[in-house]
Amino acid sequence: MEEIESFIQSFVRNNGFEGVVVGVSGGVDSALVVSLCTRALGKERVLGLILPDRDSAKESTRLALKLCRELGIEHEVISITSALRKLRVYRLFPPAWLFPRKVQESYVKGKWQSLSKDPYIDDLLNRGNETFRKGLAYYRIKHRVRMCLLYFEAEKRNYAVAGCVNKTELMTGLYVKWGDNAADFEPISHLYKTQVLELARWLRIPSEILERAPTPDLIPGITDEFVLGLSYADLDRILMKMEKKEDLSSEDPKLVQRVRQICEAARRRKIQNVRIDSSNCV
Amino acid sequence: MEEIESFIQSFVRNNGFEGVVVGVSGGVDSALVVSLCTRALGKERVLGLILPDRDSAKESTRLALKLCRELGIEHEVISITSALRKLRVYRLFPPAWLFPRKVQESYVKGKWQSLSKDPYIDDLLNRGNETFRKGLAYYRIKHRVRMCLLYFEAEKRNYAVAGCVNKTELMTGLYVKWGDNAADFEPISHLYKTQVLELARWLRIPSEILERAPTPDLIPGITDEFVLGLSYADLDRILMKMEKKEDLSSEDPKLVQRVRQICEAARRRKIQNVRIDSSNCV
Repeated sequence: MEEIESFIQSFVRNNGFEGVVVGVSGGVDSALVVSLCTRALGKERVLGLILPDRDSAKESTRLALKLCRELGIEHEVISITSALRKLRVYRLFPPAWLFPRKVQESYVKGKWQSLSKDPYIDDLLNRGNETFRKGLAYYRIKHRVRMCLLYFEAEKRNYAVAGCVNKTELMTGLYVKWGDNAADFEPISHLYKTQVLELARWLRIPSEILERAPTPDLIPGITDEFVLGLSYADLDRILMKMEKKEDLSSEDPKLVQRVRQICEAARRRKIQNVRIDSSNCV
Repeated sequence: MEEIESFIQSFVRNNGFEGVVVGVSGGVDSALVVSLCTRALGKERVLGLILPDRDSAKESTRLALKLCRELGIEHEVISITSALRKLRVYRLFPPAWLFPRKVQESYVKGKWQSLSKDPYIDDLLNRGNETFRKGLAYYRIKHRVRMCLLYFEAEKRNYAVAGCVNKTELMTGLYVKWGDNAADFEPISHLYKTQVLELARWLRIPSEILERAPTPDLIPGITDEFVLGLSYADLDRILMKMEKKEDLSSEDPKLVQRVRQICEAARRRKIQNVRIDSSNCV
């Protein structure tokens, strides 16, 4: 943890920034990042932005606000709903707020699975039928618009944007390209999700945040583990064994196969800025 | 040129995309990219998006439309003004449309120079006073919101987003991080600006586009050469000599110093996603 805090301090100092902006979602990853940044830099140099849209769980905003208040940092809630409406995003799907949250969740879960045999792999590879692809466009633009706002507020203040992706997400492709993976520095990208949870617990991050099912909170009902098709406990244990090239024979071969398939798809399609000749380029 | 076309073809085929989206600005870089993509893939597989805001020159949209029509590709004009308004971008500066374009241009030019001794270096390093930093936030979010829309339309169609940055821009930092540098592939990132112009001329891109002063068209009056403080002819000649480690003694030492200063600042502050430990990350 000291290592992360000194990384944050030296990144900010060496690059001439005056503070950092963190998008606080109400989930554990951004809760850990904003807490570490506050410890490293002091509460006067951290801005927490809470950026819900019409589909975000009210609970997410409530928990994000609670955390920012506990840390004593400057913070603001800015709804991105009206901007998304002007970008014509909501035209893709009917207004979900007509239905109760629970109905939305079970509808979306059923829909997600009915549209594709293996939705997460199709998502990573941008495959699937037209309705499925509209769903991809619909949820991904939200994280990208959030990135735009994080930089907008950061650039006004000469602050850096802190990224909140963890190692499990990076390896499995569970992030939005040019959305939540677009930041100036990444203080927790070397930690698996289970390590993020451990450290967050140790830092006494509110238990309500720790105990929520991890979700990108982009579409009602779609949690991380539902999407991935296995639990973070299984996923991280297998990823760690793969990384250390340890024996996998005690693992369920089906789960190992699933993890390999996800990592391979994540590598294939998350390619960025492919160039003819990359020499001499930044 | 055949090399670029086969790069486009193989990138699209090998990654399972069905076509490409290009943001067509009315400038020469995007004109070359959209022309090359149309030659490589056929006009049925290219979508041109023209994304002006309240500050864009009318001439830009007119030329972009003209080019898309000549190429015979599907295209659409989507103003980003209302989305930027909802993102509270225009609150930073008074409504420029009250003034004639020429007045806007000379006002902004004067303002740009009055705010900082060396505005481009301060821009690259995010320095400068509060008004100057607001200006940075004001113009950069535009390219980022454009990126959001390019991906939104691309993902609905399973298309790839083509980037339009050239090698001169990459080396001098003349792009917006996570804005125009965020794409799936970069067909002209190995060409200096002067080479882009040559190839565009050879491809008979409308002379009105070739003859315009290169500008990001983000703020009235701010052209590339005005910002850089030297001409593309000088800049590219010096950059090429530096790349080939050729003798620079015949060059004006002041210009060489300027180019070195710009490249150094571009390298320093355009850093992306800095991680504690980058092993095993995508």
